[in-house]
This record gives sequence, C-alpha cells and structure tokens, in this order.
Amino acid sequence: MNIRFYNARILTMVEGQEIFDGELWVEGSRITYVGEAKSEEEISKVSGRFTRCIDCRGNLLMPGFKDAHTHSGMTLMRTYADGLPLQEWLETKIFPLEAKMSGEDCALLTKLAILEYLTSGITAIMDMYLSPEDIATACEETGMRVVQVSGINKFGPSLEVFEERFLKLNDRHPLSSYKMGFHAEYTCDKELLMKLSDLAHKYKAPMYTHNSETVREVKECVDRYQMTPTVFLDSLGLFDYGGGGYHCCHMTDEDIEVFKKHNMSVVTNPGSNTKLASGIAPVARFLEEGINVAIGTDGPSSNNCLDMFREMFLVTGLAKLREKDASVVSGMEVLKMATVGGARAMDIMDCDVLASGKEADIIMIDLMQPNMQPINDIANNLVYSGSKQNVKMTMIHGKILYEDGKFNIGISPADIYKGASMIQKRLF
Amino acid sequence: MNIRFYNARILTMVEGQEIFDGELWVEGSRITYVGEAKSEEEISKVSGRFTRCIDCRGNLLMPGFKDAHTHSGMTLMRTYADGLPLQEWLETKIFPLEAKMSGEDCALLTKLAILEYLTSGITAIMDMYLSPEDIATACEETGMRVVQVSGINKFGPSLEVFEERFLKLNDRHPLSSYKMGFHAEYTCDKELLMKLSDLAHKYKAPMYTHNSETVREVKECVDRYQMTPTVFLDSLGLFDYGGGGYHCCHMTDEDIEVFKKHNMSVVTNPGSNTKLASGIAPVARFLEEGINVAIGTDGPSSNNCLDMFREMFLVTGLAKLREKDASVVSGMEVLKMATVGGARAMDIMDCDVLASGKEADIIMIDLMQPNMQPINDIANNLVYSGSKQNVKMTMIHGKILYEDGKFNIGISPADIYKGASMIQKRLF
Repeated sequence: MNIRFYNARILTMVEGQEIFDGELWVEGSRITYVGEAKSEEEISKVSGRFTRCIDCRGNLLMPGFKDAHTHSGMTLMRTYADGLPLQEWLETKIFPLEAKMSGEDCALLTKLAILEYLTSGITAIMDMYLSPEDIATACEETGMRVVQVSGINKFGPSLEVFEERFLKLNDRHPLSSYKMGFHAEYTCDKELLMKLSDLAHKYKAPMYTHNSETVREVKECVDRYQMTPTVFLDSLGLFDYGGGGYHCCHMTDEDIEVFKKHNMSVVTNPGSNTKLASGIAPVARFLEEGINVAIGTDGPSSNNCLDMFREMFLVTGLAKLREKDASVVSGMEVLKMATVGGARAMDIMDCDVLASGKEADIIMIDLMQPNMQPINDIANNLVYSGSKQNVKMTMIHGKILYEDGKFNIGISPADIYKGASMIQKRLF
Repeated sequence: MNIRFYNARILTMVEGQEIFDGELWVEGSRITYVGEAKSEEEISKVSGRFTRCIDCRGNLLMPGFKDAHTHSGMTLMRTYADGLPLQEWLETKIFPLEAKMSGEDCALLTKLAILEYLTSGITAIMDMYLSPEDIATACEETGMRVVQVSGINKFGPSLEVFEERFLKLNDRHPLSSYKMGFHAEYTCDKELLMKLSDLAHKYKAPMYTHNSETVREVKECVDRYQMTPTVFLDSLGLFDYGGGGYHCCHMTDEDIEVFKKHNMSVVTNPGSNTKLASGIAPVARFLEEGINVAIGTDGPSSNNCLDMFREMFLVTGLAKLREKDASVVSGMEVLKMATVGGARAMDIMDCDVLASGKEADIIMIDLMQPNMQPINDIANNLVYSGSKQNVKMTMIHGKILYEDGKFNIGISPADIYKGASMIQKRLF
C-alpha cells in the first residue's frame, strides 16, 4: 500500500530542522518524499502511485517512538505485585510466576503489550524476555518492530542455546533482530560473564544489561568485586563493542567514563524507577557528557503502563527535580531521546527520522485535542502535555497498524484480552 | 434526563466498600440507586422512569475526579514560557500577559480548560484566576462544577470588591461557589492579610492559598517575619475556620501541626512542582498525620496539562522516590485523594462518592483498553496505568458532558480552539 499524507505539519527530527507544513509519501515500507506541499500539477502526475491519500488536517507527522527497554510479556503481572522494592518484587513474585509461563503464553502476552505500544505511538521495542522465538513470531505476525536482547543469567538457558538463537534470530525477518545481553551483574556469576565476553568478541557484538538500577545493586557489587557494576563489567571486556545500560540511576564519574569510552547508550526508565523507588538517573549529566540517551518504559509490572508520553514527561520532570533547575532537559532533547536516541541505542538507524529512503515508522499526533491548544510550541507541548489520546495513527514498516482507536494487527483486541485472562486464571 | 447504567463494575469510594458488579440510576441531578443488578421484574416496573439505559459492558463507574487547584484561564500560556523557575516565570512572563487579558478572554480560555478536564474525568475544579464572574458564567454555561477561590494580592482589586463578589457568587447557581483565598504570602503585605483575616472571621470562612511551594518562598518569609508561611499566616488568624494550602512542598513539623489544628487540607500539585523544579511534597507524612490530602493539576502553564491520571501516578511515584520506599501511598489512597479528599477540600461533600442521594458526578472508565488488561487490581491499575484514553464518559450534575470522545457543552471544540487562537494572536 502506498500512502500520500498531505496537509500535514511535519517534525522530521532531522538535526536542525524545524516543524514545517508539507506532505510525506510512503511507498512500500519506505518514505519516498518528505517536504513542502507539491503543486496540483505535480500531484496529478504521481497520483496513480498512491492507493490512499490521507488529509492530515494540520495534524503532526513525526517518527514513531522507540521504547528502548521493555519486557512485553510481563503484561500478565500488571498490578500483580505493586508496592514492593525491586529485589523483593523480583525474587518473591516475578521469578516464580515466570517459571510457569509457556512460549505460547509469552507470545499472547507480547501481543497484548503491542496493542498498548501502538496506542502510545511506539513503533519499535527493545525487548528482553523469555521465549525469544515466540516473541519474534508475535512481533512479525502483528507487524511490530522488535530488537530483542538476551537476558542471560545463571538460572537460564546455556550460552550454547543463546549462541544458536543469536545466529537464528538475526536476519530472519526485516522487523526483527536479536542483540547480546544479560539480565544483570547480580544474576550472573563471573565465569558466565567471562564466557559471554568471549562471545561478544567472537561476533564483535555490542552488549546490553540492567545496570546500576538501585543503590543496593551497586553496593553489593562493590562488596563482591570492589568495583561498581559498570566498571566491573567493563573490566571483563563486555562493553568492548559498545552497547547500553538500562536504568543507570546510580552512576559514578568512573562509570560515566566507561560509557563515553565505548560510545554506549543509557536507556533511562523513569516510570519504573519511580514506582519501585529506585532513584532518579542523572540524565542532565549524561547529556552534558555527550552520552546517547534513549527512553524505555520497562515492563508493565514495574511501571505499570507502556506509555512513552508518561516517560517523556518524567525524563525531563525528574531531571528538573534532581538538579533543582527548571531549565534542564528541554522538550526537544526529550523528543530526540524518544526517537533518534532510541534508534541509535537499538541499532535501527533506518528508522530514526523522517527522510526520503528511511523506513516508514511514522505516527500522526492529533493537535485538535484540548491539551494541544492553542498551538504554540508543539515540541514542548508533546513532552509536557501529550498523551496517548493524541495518537491518531501508528505506522510501522509502511503499514498502518493503529488508526483512530482501531487496530489492524491480524488479531482482535477482544481475542487478546480473552487469551490473557485465560493465562491469568491458569497461572495465578 | 434520567439514566440507568447497567452491567457495570462500580467503585463507589464509600469507605470500606469493594468494587462490585451492579447498576446505578441517575434521576435529575442526583443518584437514586447504586447497588446490585435489579431483576428483570423489578426493572420492568421502573423502566418508564428512564430516558436512556446504558449498557456499561463491564466497564467501571466511579465518582468523577476533583481537581482541587487550578488556574483554568492559563490555557493561553501553555508552553508560553517553559523551563523557568517559579518566581522568574511569574514575574517576567505570566503577570505582564495576564494584565492584558479581558474577562471575555478569560471565559473562553476557561472553556478550553473545561474540554480538557472532561477528557480526564475531572468533574469539579477549584479555580483561582482573574474575572471570577466570567469564570462562573463559563462553568455554568458548559455545565462544569466550580469552586472558585479569590486570589487576593497587593496588586489586585480591593477587599471591598472581593467581599461584594463573595456575597454575589455564592448561591448564584448550584454548580458554582466562591471561597476566600489569597494568592500567597509573598504577594500580599501584612496589613492586607490582617484585613482579610477580619473578613474570614466575619463570615466564619475557610481560607485557601498557595503555601510553601518553593524553598525560596519559605526562606524569604522567614527572613521577613521570622516565621514560615504557614505559621505566619496562622498567627494572623487566617486559618481559624480551616481551609487549605496549595503545593505545601516544604513543610516543617510546626507547619504540619497548624494544618492538623485547623483541620485544613493539603492540595498537592506534583506535575507543576516537577516541571518548575519546586520540590516533592511529603505526602506520605501528611497521610500518617491524618491530614486530608487532595490533588490539583495547577494551571496549564506550569504543568502543562490538566490530567488527573498524570497527577495520580506522580502523587504516589514521587512519594515513593522521596521516602525511598516503594510501599508508601497505595493506589487506593491516591484514588481517595482524587475523589473524596478533593470533595472535602473543596467543600462539595455532596459529590464525594457514589451513593443514593448524592450528586451525579460520575465517570465511566473503559477497561477494554490494553493498559487495563488483564483485569486484576483495578484500583491500582487506574493509578499506575490509567490515562485519559480510558475515560469513556464524564457526567456532572446528572448531565453527560463527554462521551466516547464527543463533547456536549453547548459550544464546539473547534469554536473554542479558534477563539483561543485569536486571543493568542492579539496578546502574544
């Protein structure tokens, strides 16, 4: 399906480019034109190329949001165990339940998450969870773009199984890829991490992990190895090909140097860090230091929703509170994290901005809602006032998957809700 | 119009009452029945009384949210001056622009805010802004419930004008009342405050004000009077008939004692306090001390949206961060603040819960959205995962003003947006 969007405001997120009025063409999975409105004469020449023309009525087109850290299948545990700190929550509630989940469960629960991502304009996710094959299938079937990350830990499958998956799940589908990662320092022993480092070197692969999320995690690592998690993991060579850290709330100057040295990304998760009382990441400092910052919702059991608008407000709001300075981290800086920063962290640079030749991962923002009026600084308004309600359309890989509240992902929401409810009845 | 809601889940917010399946009747402006589903025989006897029967399909009915502190007319300044700390923002940006606003402007801009309140399930507001008569008219025309508070300050109208308004604006319409208040300690001199205290005593009236919002405000008051704002204002007898404080981020033990002694309410404004880097209010402590806590969005220039869902997540999230404890301030405690606590702070106890004889200020929450699935702990989920997108219907005083994205307030959103844009062009 080839689509022409006209009468649009367009925020390309190309560095230095302001919002402008114009039009955008999608042919196949790619953007073939972004720019000023074409004349009637020009349009008459090309109109046969389009199967649908959408009058945007002054609404905004922009790149879809990248949710750079999540655990989609945890939709099952939404409000299952609220009010607990991270470690207790994981060990007493989450791990025992996860042990009972099947691959099929995981696929269905991932589809439930995908519905929610689409309502929030999220067009790509970096997902770390059980049953990677089933997650890949769920994303491919529905049309969601996914970068999976292995959550290797001392309880889980062997490195041999992982290496096989790594080879199998990359290049199997244009929407789906698989990165090296481990759950966290505190769920891996040193020997496992050393072997994983060897694999990273073998494939020259970047490495991703939960990092310095809580004070307790950092303290226990220092007790164990006399190094912070970042420095300890780096000492094993795990970050020699870059990668990223999720959370990064409690970072020393030395930790920050490690991230800079290896050109690593921080993925900040303010909703989860707030709900679990983990702390506030020094995002203003990361920006000052030139570190790439992306945003993740984390999973729906620790957040509990998968909403980039909530995260965007929290990224800047918590930075302001932390630094006691209302001027830090502007709306545009946050939008950059949620789009370009995410694409860079996830290594999907084909999807970062709206430009000819790029993947058509596009959202339309409804500006004709009261929270966007009167129209003034649209970029700031998206971050400070935007909500799911403003997402009129979500397109991934050239296909509209969500439009005016309706989904087009090959399965009905009602069937997904019914499936999730049945899993809940079986496992709770 | 008399309406029967059936097939509903119902959260009455009556103390100790759990969510149950049942039905609810509205006749005129009042609730006439809330309880279990009636039998077909019983229904056949009463069905002639209803002009409309709404099948809720398992969705949730609950009391509307009370936004206990806002400045509606500031919709004009949404994203007008982001990134500034409170005092600079007020003095260099907001006050000069407000000086140019007419009463008619204020009414139109209030209607713009009302659209947004309705999308977020807010059924009553406590509004402090310019042109009280015009605000009252805007609310009465659209059907919004409003408790206005005077924002007396040393630059504004005289106390004689205020007293006249106080007498005129109370009892003029069932949706509208007017309370005594002043802007803040730092915008009033002592003589003015003493005269206002006399008026509070004359009418035995509770008193409301911005209180201890920033460190600077508290410090300057201590420098001036060797007392914190709360203690200083109390020393003038301003709180002898109770009332409330907006913000209350920086409170001493002595301040808390003043609030307890006079049975005053704290209205917490976490979105605004975050965006302006003002600080985090000690909400967990307020609850421990038995102080009534309500929630306000503050105005759309400092927040920048009017969304009770954002505020509810922030109330508990920021409390967890402040106390470094994920267990403080439960979802149900937050819902209580947003409904019953608000009604108590605003002195509209007829609208606090769903019960026979109460005002029909009711919202319907769409549970058939991905962020509410699978259905588990609904109360927690509203607070941790709810969004404007879940508001299917907003009813005030027995009238449905918002339903499935459509407004019924006697003026179209398009006309309001056009009006706001014209004001913007004239004044910016």
